[in-house]
Amino acid sequence: MRVKNKNYSSIWLENKTIKIIDQTKLPYEFSIIELESLEDFCRAIEHMQVRGAPLIGVTAALGLAKSIYKNPKDSNIFKSYEKLLKTRPTAVNLKWAIEKIKNQSLKYNINERGDIAIKLAIKIMKDDVESCKRIGANGLEIIKKIYSKKRKTINILTHCNAGWLATVDYGTALSPIFFAKKAKIPIHVWVDETRPRNQGGLLTSWELKNQKIAHTVVVDNAGGYLMQHRKIDLCIVGSDRTTLSGDVCNKIGTYLKAISAYDNNIPFYVALPTSTIDKKIKFGKDVPIEIRNGKEISELYFQNSNGLHKGKIYGKEIKTYNPAFDITPSKYITKLITDKGICKADNSSIKKLLKK
Amino acid sequence: MRVKNKNYSSIWLENKTIKIIDQTKLPYEFSIIELESLEDFCRAIEHMQVRGAPLIGVTAALGLAKSIYKNPKDSNIFKSYEKLLKTRPTAVNLKWAIEKIKNQSLKYNINERGDIAIKLAIKIMKDDVESCKRIGANGLEIIKKIYSKKRKTINILTHCNAGWLATVDYGTALSPIFFAKKAKIPIHVWVDETRPRNQGGLLTSWELKNQKIAHTVVVDNAGGYLMQHRKIDLCIVGSDRTTLSGDVCNKIGTYLKAISAYDNNIPFYVALPTSTIDKKIKFGKDVPIEIRNGKEISELYFQNSNGLHKGKIYGKEIKTYNPAFDITPSKYITKLITDKGICKADNSSIKKLLKK
Repeated sequence: MRVKNKNYSSIWLENKTIKIIDQTKLPYEFSIIELESLEDFCRAIEHMQVRGAPLIGVTAALGLAKSIYKNPKDSNIFKSYEKLLKTRPTAVNLKWAIEKIKNQSLKYNINERGDIAIKLAIKIMKDDVESCKRIGANGLEIIKKIYSKKRKTINILTHCNAGWLATVDYGTALSPIFFAKKAKIPIHVWVDETRPRNQGGLLTSWELKNQKIAHTVVVDNAGGYLMQHRKIDLCIVGSDRTTLSGDVCNKIGTYLKAISAYDNNIPFYVALPTSTIDKKIKFGKDVPIEIRNGKEISELYFQNSNGLHKGKIYGKEIKTYNPAFDITPSKYITKLITDKGICKADNSSIKKLLKK
Repeated sequence: MRVKNKNYSSIWLENKTIKIIDQTKLPYEFSIIELESLEDFCRAIEHMQVRGAPLIGVTAALGLAKSIYKNPKDSNIFKSYEKLLKTRPTAVNLKWAIEKIKNQSLKYNINERGDIAIKLAIKIMKDDVESCKRIGANGLEIIKKIYSKKRKTINILTHCNAGWLATVDYGTALSPIFFAKKAKIPIHVWVDETRPRNQGGLLTSWELKNQKIAHTVVVDNAGGYLMQHRKIDLCIVGSDRTTLSGDVCNKIGTYLKAISAYDNNIPFYVALPTSTIDKKIKFGKDVPIEIRNGKEISELYFQNSNGLHKGKIYGKEIKTYNPAFDITPSKYITKLITDKGICKADNSSIKKLLKK
């Protein structure tokens, strides 16, 4: 991740301190905060100072490892695990990562657990970067193929933010786009605003600007029009949880874009690290969907001459309902782009992929 | 329309003066403004102080009539017609209404034209109210039918605002809902926020609140989730232009809800006065789609302790693209609810309907 000519990742270790970029302030402020206590980690995840399935997983892993380092007793491991697990219910990476840390630590003597946990959490963090790089390289092949036919700017629609900031670095859905930019393929990205938290308009556009990739922000309603008018060559989105049958749970609104792409015969790809695949769930309907605070709909950050403020766009008399994710059935997904390769969104293809 | 225990319509004549409710200020301020010059009328339409296909038509008709009253010469009639025509390209009611006024006036002697034009414009205004009432009565039959099976609260999704404020009174999509409320059928309305201008969150919720109808505002992204979870019994939306084959041009994002309803086997109705049917266009692809200023995406009204302000949610470095409408192909529409009855969204049914 390149910010003001310096390389960053979304989370990193600096002299034994975990640091993150506070994503609730972006793109207005580039603010770095330190996570020390378990409560710091839980708050960062819950309040979405870090977000995106892969980054949530890494953050939770580091949080649990830190807690084990301080107090390696069984009771603390279980308590900390439960606290972290409750922060956000949908992204499976969180559970996947902290289960790894918990189970591995419990295998060791009390005095070894802290080091083991920290080491493993760092490995998960580093693996995420490698995994995202591979997603980028694999996705690049798809973009190359489309470009070899079109020989003109490739227009890609993405929803929400599945870039650097949703992972440790590189991203999932945006990783192939960053790779395509490097490969000098002309790209233009249609960025879904992604209400209610506007992570497309705020975070994805910020990443693309930093990477000097042409992009345009549209409201979430506009995707159908863009597809009807052949202004989109392909869609790439991320995933918060992928089932064994290939159903994808991702940011609310993803499903609407997928069925629109299907209706207009436009390829719809989902980019994901295999850690996002939930091996215990076959169908999307069984994924728990987080219902978040309705204030996310009615309160927004806005800028004026005095700086950045929070303001209400709807009065408190207005009732809101705020589901954070929806399910895209596998039949609407062209292919999954993963760290282990590209595969069809169906049970046998996913099983084969996981064996690699 | 009931506001603070007083009856209003969206546009009215008071001592020879045309008055409107400034819809850009709602629901924060209930501000009434007078339209006097042709420029006043053009500005009100362009800046969406009045909006909604039927109301645009009535406003333009009154604007042209007033201009003819002041100067009934051919040259002024044509010039005023052209000016009004340019204000907004998509809603066909505008053209339909001013063409009526222009053609009728030109048939008369100069000294009769003013009175003729004013009379006809007032007739168009009154007809719109009657037309919307009939849409309500016709749509009520559909809701009644669903209620007779379910016998529990009927959940209706609507997009944008197709209520009182989009017409002279009663509305199109909301008219059946108002009729159902009167008929004591328990109703809950899911209100799409409708980015970028949020006419759902701001205007539709305000109308429903005034009419004491239970409702919840959701982001435009949420409709798919609601349908997947069977939280919607039917959808009703309005139309800015309907083609002879039954394709519907309506507020951007309508198409996404229609295909989602189709995918989830939920009925999707479009409520429209027959004045919205463009007899010269067969297919949706031929409807001109207005591209509006991108500032509508990045600038919003918000409230704080100091009152109401306009604020930026995206910096000016962010490029935006703002198409205002999309096309819903007829195959995704269950039925059209019109002033002349309910009919299938296909060429022969529409032709039959228009002959009534």
